[in-house]
Amino acid sequence: MRRIVILAEGAFTLHRAKTATGVIRYSKDEILAVIDSTHMGKDVAQALEVPLGEGIPMVQDIHEALRLKPDTLMIGIAPQGGALPASWRWQLLTAIEHGLDIISGLHTFLADDDELREAAEKKGVTLWDVRRAPDQTRVAQFTPHRPGSHTVLMVGSDCSAGKMTVALELERVARQRGLDGAFLATGQTGIMISNDGLPIDHLISDFIAGMVEEKVLEMSNAHEWVFVEGQGALTHPGYSPVTLGLIHGSVPDAMIFCHLATAKTIDGYERCPMPSLSRLIQINEDAINWIRQDGQCKVVGLALMTVGLSEEEARVAIQQAEEETGLPTTDVIRFGAEKLMDALQQHFSTR
Amino acid sequence: MRRIVILAEGAFTLHRAKTATGVIRYSKDEILAVIDSTHMGKDVAQALEVPLGEGIPMVQDIHEALRLKPDTLMIGIAPQGGALPASWRWQLLTAIEHGLDIISGLHTFLADDDELREAAEKKGVTLWDVRRAPDQTRVAQFTPHRPGSHTVLMVGSDCSAGKMTVALELERVARQRGLDGAFLATGQTGIMISNDGLPIDHLISDFIAGMVEEKVLEMSNAHEWVFVEGQGALTHPGYSPVTLGLIHGSVPDAMIFCHLATAKTIDGYERCPMPSLSRLIQINEDAINWIRQDGQCKVVGLALMTVGLSEEEARVAIQQAEEETGLPTTDVIRFGAEKLMDALQQHFSTR
Repeated sequence: MRRIVILAEGAFTLHRAKTATGVIRYSKDEILAVIDSTHMGKDVAQALEVPLGEGIPMVQDIHEALRLKPDTLMIGIAPQGGALPASWRWQLLTAIEHGLDIISGLHTFLADDDELREAAEKKGVTLWDVRRAPDQTRVAQFTPHRPGSHTVLMVGSDCSAGKMTVALELERVARQRGLDGAFLATGQTGIMISNDGLPIDHLISDFIAGMVEEKVLEMSNAHEWVFVEGQGALTHPGYSPVTLGLIHGSVPDAMIFCHLATAKTIDGYERCPMPSLSRLIQINEDAINWIRQDGQCKVVGLALMTVGLSEEEARVAIQQAEEETGLPTTDVIRFGAEKLMDALQQHFSTR
Repeated sequence: MRRIVILAEGAFTLHRAKTATGVIRYSKDEILAVIDSTHMGKDVAQALEVPLGEGIPMVQDIHEALRLKPDTLMIGIAPQGGALPASWRWQLLTAIEHGLDIISGLHTFLADDDELREAAEKKGVTLWDVRRAPDQTRVAQFTPHRPGSHTVLMVGSDCSAGKMTVALELERVARQRGLDGAFLATGQTGIMISNDGLPIDHLISDFIAGMVEEKVLEMSNAHEWVFVEGQGALTHPGYSPVTLGLIHGSVPDAMIFCHLATAKTIDGYERCPMPSLSRLIQINEDAINWIRQDGQCKVVGLALMTVGLSEEEARVAIQQAEEETGLPTTDVIRFGAEKLMDALQQHFSTR
């Protein structure tokens, strides 16, 4: 287990620090502190104003964080531009100087930065750029999974629809039930949480399905249940190839559909209204059946993100979705993932 | 116009030299000779045993080729492994020494080879690695095309189903009819032929649709008709993400479906039988309608590759396909692309 401090200087909000909050919620490593001088003196829950990370202190800078004896500094945001904020450099260099490994999900790779790389080499610490794609060229072979294994892929109506969270909650419920469940991360936050996975959005188009297939074959050989983090949406004008690569590479046995209850269009695309839930589910089932001609893979449950709704509104939204689609529906953060795991176990027991 | 010699030593067959034959058939540059010592003394047509490249000599090596005063050496094969055959190196170095530019579609980039790069820099010649992806990160915006422009995408049942050829033949027929047609290349051979395009299979998954969109917007602003070379197939277990990136990035107004008449499975995938033509067409129309909700884009014609069939068998296959799909069908190499261009003009005139 690592002892991690998270660097999020000036950026520790629910919206901007999705990576940090994901890691705080799910990582098995110990999170000692979060660096953001604008929240000094609070704890994480007070800084974010949500019930998460109570007792984890917000600290001023790397010097204050070092008193807690961390062994790792994790960069807790992934800004759009992708580059390392210039004002963070001294904190990274100080961390390296004190022997900390660095974990980064930035688009710009730390190990490509001469100053940081040389400092890391000198101190013998690791710079882990989780977004760096494996230098490998593998075309999918359409190899069957181990019979009896269950590969479950999260799909959805857009990015940021809860796919990673749902996969992690399903893994947790599976383990609680004594089932052998494993989580396959496909984005930088999931990779930081599980210390493994594929940085899908940096893979070359020709190899995305093949790389996913290799990982799923390996995991379904070793585990009964593999919960695969999804990405994007088949109806997303920019990211649909990533989504299809995941569907055709993982060749799921079942899917869970993830959706932000309040979404009206694809985020950032006003000309792309959301199709109905039933239509979206049909689209995802169609896409897997293009190659999986047995028609056995279905969407078996619906995960609604009801953030922004009251609990009463959330229950209404969930009921409406169940009526529209005929599928078991819940918000896994508010109400747990048991209902979805029930649906999955039911699905496989009747096949 | 360039004066090109093609290097295909020991590999100049219809099957292995797809790049060379594509360039010989369609390039506007002058092809002076093909280097393959195993065919010395023949012309291209005699070497391939097909009516293509009559009068273009097969020569022994770069020394013999240099007598024809070329200004460019093109590597005419793209072997699976991707690397430069060791025995070709001296011929490349000799060409560079004599001031020739080099064009390569190899997976391994010539400009990353120290010896070749240094030789090229010394002589001031260009090493053009056509598969090198632009260093650009652009997410598709779903921006409408210029009203009145026609974007036509080739789709198909597999790789090597004639998509590049059909797009080039449609461009030719369009020009013959006085229409302003342009060809958008998306693979290495198409790029070598048109001196422009996108090496789709080397693009990062997140940006494939965005890069295609940018190019299509540029071309549909400048031309009446844009014929986009397709890649792979939505039903291909390995390459489907590339295909969907092309469909969602180009947002076509019409599609032509390309199919090898004798294919029974996806090439190399025995567990992937070909769905029926009608089903394949439906799949491609479904995929564009996921984002193009007006339902205006259809497959309007079928291009059958009847290579390996007699002319009589070819006519029967074409008639059967027309009966099954209700779509105008032809083999553009055997019978020309006029029928497909008729179908496209008809489609847009009645909208």
